[in-house]
Amino acid sequence: MLPLLTRIDHVGIACRDLDAAIGRYEATFGLQVVSLEVNEEQGVREAMLAVGASGASGGDLRPGYVQLLEPLGPDTPVGRFLARRGEGLHHVGYGVQDIGQALDAIGVRGVRLLDERPRHGSMGASIAFLHPADLGGVLTELVEAADPA
Amino acid sequence: MLPLLTRIDHVGIACRDLDAAIGRYEATFGLQVVSLEVNEEQGVREAMLAVGASGASGGDLRPGYVQLLEPLGPDTPVGRFLARRGEGLHHVGYGVQDIGQALDAIGVRGVRLLDERPRHGSMGASIAFLHPADLGGVLTELVEAADPA
Repeated sequence: MLPLLTRIDHVGIACRDLDAAIGRYEATFGLQVVSLEVNEEQGVREAMLAVGASGASGGDLRPGYVQLLEPLGPDTPVGRFLARRGEGLHHVGYGVQDIGQALDAIGVRGVRLLDERPRHGSMGASIAFLHPADLGGVLTELVEAADPA
Repeated sequence: MLPLLTRIDHVGIACRDLDAAIGRYEATFGLQVVSLEVNEEQGVREAMLAVGASGASGGDLRPGYVQLLEPLGPDTPVGRFLARRGEGLHHVGYGVQDIGQALDAIGVRGVRLLDERPRHGSMGASIAFLHPADLGGVLTELVEAADPA
């Protein structure tokens, strides 16, 4: 079986105050924000902070990222996560070369897809989530990065 | 400030049955176990599964890893985590070039160290944990990989 995952793309971290969380990662580790966006569909305001040099974290030219997620309101997935579990690790995202092929492959291996079709993720990526109940409690995201062009 | 972190080294995942968890990651993603060991000091039996090609995940020759952790008993850090939160994401580990220097730098930035000195981690690495209360609820590990020699 060909390995589907090309890298650890990011760790997603739920926080109550995005600006405070960014400040903490900047001050502690010297990380820098490379993208700051609002994703209405997912109900988050989010920042991506690059870990490692570009071209240093995968089979492609994408580094790894710390993804900080602040919910747009309490009735969103991240808002409900914060109410239930508090701040902390929310999900892990792995790189894939072709997200359509990856979803087709994983769907027949007994893991339920939360997204049958890819949707819009950070920095123009195509993403999809897999059901945590089928992966030992880990909310797992697949990420096909946007073409650098 | 020079960035301290060279890569996302691994995601640590707490599980009740290590063999079942390994089987799930093999079957779903085609990942392979590259190290299986018992760490008595940390109270875990653990597996490292490589994500991405060697040399593809950092400034050094180490890929990223999924680290699956089964506690050796209920009165261990991972055993208590499972009792409190259930299976799922436990911590994130970032690569550093020199763990002694990294701990010195972080210690003066207001983040408490759970390990004042590095200790033994997976695959011969030197590791240290940082206090999750100072990092938005995220148990964070620093990893200086062993020399490939």
